Amino acid sequence: MAKKSDLGVTPLSEDVSAWYNELVFKAELADRGPAKGTMVIRPYGYRVWELLQSQLDQRFKDTGHVNASFPLFIPESYLKREAEHVEGFSPELAVVTHAGGKELEEPLVVRPTSETIIGEMYSKWISSYRDLPILINQWANVVRWELRPRVFLRTTEFLWQEGHTAHASKDEAMEETLRMFDVYAEFARNVAAIPMVQGEKTPGERFAGAVATFSIEGMMRDGKALQSGTSHYLGTNFAKAFDISFQDENNELQLAHTTSWGMSTRMIGAVILAHGDDQGLVLPPRLAPIQVVIVPIGRGEQAEGPRAKAHELAAQLAEAGVRAHVDDRDASPGFKFNDWELKGVPLRVELGPRDLEAGHVLMAQRIGELDDKGRAVKDTLGFDEFVAAVPDRLDVYHELLLERARTFRDEHSAPVDDFDAFEAQVAVGFACALHCGEASCEDDIKAATAATPRCIPVDGDAEEGACVRCGKASAYGKRVVFARAY
Amino acid sequence: MAKKSDLGVTPLSEDVSAWYNELVFKAELADRGPAKGTMVIRPYGYRVWELLQSQLDQRFKDTGHVNASFPLFIPESYLKREAEHVEGFSPELAVVTHAGGKELEEPLVVRPTSETIIGEMYSKWISSYRDLPILINQWANVVRWELRPRVFLRTTEFLWQEGHTAHASKDEAMEETLRMFDVYAEFARNVAAIPMVQGEKTPGERFAGAVATFSIEGMMRDGKALQSGTSHYLGTNFAKAFDISFQDENNELQLAHTTSWGMSTRMIGAVILAHGDDQGLVLPPRLAPIQVVIVPIGRGEQAEGPRAKAHELAAQLAEAGVRAHVDDRDASPGFKFNDWELKGVPLRVELGPRDLEAGHVLMAQRIGELDDKGRAVKDTLGFDEFVAAVPDRLDVYHELLLERARTFRDEHSAPVDDFDAFEAQVAVGFACALHCGEASCEDDIKAATAATPRCIPVDGDAEEGACVRCGKASAYGKRVVFARAY
Ligand SMILES: [Zn+2]
Ligand SMILES: [Zn+2]
Repeated sequence: MAKKSDLGVTPLSEDVSAWYNELVFKAELADRGPAKGTMVIRPYGYRVWELLQSQLDQRFKDTGHVNASFPLFIPESYLKREAEHVEGFSPELAVVTHAGGKELEEPLVVRPTSETIIGEMYSKWISSYRDLPILINQWANVVRWELRPRVFLRTTEFLWQEGHTAHASKDEAMEETLRMFDVYAEFARNVAAIPMVQGEKTPGERFAGAVATFSIEGMMRDGKALQSGTSHYLGTNFAKAFDISFQDENNELQLAHTTSWGMSTRMIGAVILAHGDDQGLVLPPRLAPIQVVIVPIGRGEQAEGPRAKAHELAAQLAEAGVRAHVDDRDASPGFKFNDWELKGVPLRVELGPRDLEAGHVLMAQRIGELDDKGRAVKDTLGFDEFVAAVPDRLDVYHELLLERARTFRDEHSAPVDDFDAFEAQVAVGFACALHCGEASCEDDIKAATAATPRCIPVDGDAEEGACVRCGKASAYGKRVVFARAY
Repeated sequence: MAKKSDLGVTPLSEDVSAWYNELVFKAELADRGPAKGTMVIRPYGYRVWELLQSQLDQRFKDTGHVNASFPLFIPESYLKREAEHVEGFSPELAVVTHAGGKELEEPLVVRPTSETIIGEMYSKWISSYRDLPILINQWANVVRWELRPRVFLRTTEFLWQEGHTAHASKDEAMEETLRMFDVYAEFARNVAAIPMVQGEKTPGERFAGAVATFSIEGMMRDGKALQSGTSHYLGTNFAKAFDISFQDENNELQLAHTTSWGMSTRMIGAVILAHGDDQGLVLPPRLAPIQVVIVPIGRGEQAEGPRAKAHELAAQLAEAGVRAHVDDRDASPGFKFNDWELKGVPLRVELGPRDLEAGHVLMAQRIGELDDKGRAVKDTLGFDEFVAAVPDRLDVYHELLLERARTFRDEHSAPVDDFDAFEAQVAVGFACALHCGEASCEDDIKAATAATPRCIPVDGDAEEGACVRCGKASAYGKRVVFARAY
């Protein structure tokens, strides 16, 4: 068993898996639910989700989308209408067979995703080209039965958003697919501070029923990939299955082209695994429930002044739009510092009686410069200076995390041209390799290394050659990113 | 069959039920889902829910609550731990018996409400008085099987929030129960423009498992009551069933006192039924997706100027925090005016080429003064004057709706002292009557008149006397509000 740190959490540097499993509970992000594979998102974790939600939702609205709500229960027969779709989702379905004290005539599936039920409604709502495009998103819970559940990463029930759009032409639908793909990558970069590899999935990794699937793939601290959002061009597959058709401008009946795209509570797992360290969580400031924690120091009567000032400063920060918190619990400063470090708060501020007298605070960053004893360097800032400086410091801190993640990713990514190099590379990160494009060869690589093709990067250079595994001619016209994945 | 208006909707004044059923679809608030009793909330209706959500959530945060997310699936055995609770909810449960291709060892209930699963988690999280109070809310979907579903009012699945709190003492828990009860009433008044009757439920109408239930009851346009939010003091019932106990300051083991409180998408039904009229929806401005619609008038080239100016004005309004929309669809002004009237937009603005030249707009209110031909009076406002006036006009309009609803309610409420008067009164509104408090007498009244005790109003005067139905001595020390209810 790995040695636990003072925090009661196995260090990340020793065992990423144990670190993750212990940290999500210890930091009170989540807990296990009673039913197998379900999770409780605790207030600290849910606040991360709310911050993610509001900032992502704003991007959806800015790109012309509106929200709606579709039913949780889907008649079983609907799933069967799109052949690939049902094949992909059948093993994961939860089914309601009894309700209101009776057995149902037709079982109801708890939605694993909503293409089918939304397809049915779009068929009703769309009759003319004037009804298009339809640009709808929904924030919802979905259920996919998990045999090996992991909090945030793979849970039987999870929260997500699913966009579903219908268009008059392939070009328009593809444009939408790529637009939302870019929205996800931009969001991951500018909100979660994760630089994503953007690319198209190989046929074997596509969404069940899609013509093309695009994904954003983040690199975690152990070099594994985590798929953090997907955008699908569904062609006319669901339009055929659900009769989503319209009269075009020439009065001819056409099938609509549809898309779907989703991001889920998995993204919280990505944030934990992309930024964390031995001391615990490292939260990007735009998703941090608490951006600045102020710890007043002093005992008894001596504590009064610092505490009052701390609350005054927190109120000023709140007015400037900063999420500030005063920790005036009855506990030692050392305990508090460790606790907020574990919880990943970006900026930590100390304020003792002597600081109060001197009119300043001491501020340390969760990640930043260290002194020669390996401790965080503290900046001394006058009160007004401090309040004025925080918003900018948070932005700088965001860039620091993003840059750190980018450097880490680039240092753990490499082109490889033979299978020995491939095996060594996927053990530590992303391998960029030429591949023949055959499913059996993908399976073979997976069996040998546990790595799978994550995506064909959109920004990859044109290149042809021999498959890294079987030597056949390469497909795709460029290298594919392979990695072990969550 | 009732005569339909020009709008294709049966007038409210002829048949409230037909009017409601037709209007929710016609105004594109909602649609029926494929599975029995489920609904699709369409973007226009969902926007109302989002506005409700954000304003209610702010009130929860302001009173110290945090959000979290608990699982959809509850092991069947949990429901059975609180005897009254399982008795109350059993007939309405939807049950998952199969998942992941197998029959489950223990069936999972789709949550009808979350006291049980949250109780289980609180038991885990609470051990000392220092862990209390816990003040958590969740926004979620719940399922209660409905035999006679009605969009927004009674659906198999609905959206709601459910607050669940745990406290060290009865006093604290009761204070919380009443605080949230007041938050609901204040929200209904100041956001939905509905003056609620606030009161405690009689024992027969209590939440299954509660010690005391408080509700807000709105009067609809047909004189019926609609229960719009409830707040429950649960005593130690769930604490006993789920072992939510803590060490108090004297190191003695105590049971926690818990509360729960909820408001749902039913509130959208209340808004429709409390304010609507023969022309369609009448939305209170703080819940209206569109607060001001600007209709540019003119054909061909003549339309260009008004349209450009309309978008300019809408942008200025948006900057002032007003939800403004320009209707530049290719349709006649008459069609547009009817459409926005049906959709309940508070302020409607016309802008034609001559108005543009004169530098003004014509503004009409959805509800307001009428000219001698029965048409809405239009105000002429200069462009700047118009932009500056709108926020205040919306507030005045809110007060107008609230006052109108209050007058309507008061005119349709009366004290009654004999059963003939009682029957006549509940046919048109609320009857305030003395009652013996016996369940069988409540049942008898319901069988005779369809009316039920809605609540014992908190602001009722002390009064004793004979039961309006059976003549026995009155209970409760004051009059009870009876009404037919949704
Ligand atoms: Zn190959
Ligand atoms: Zn009686």
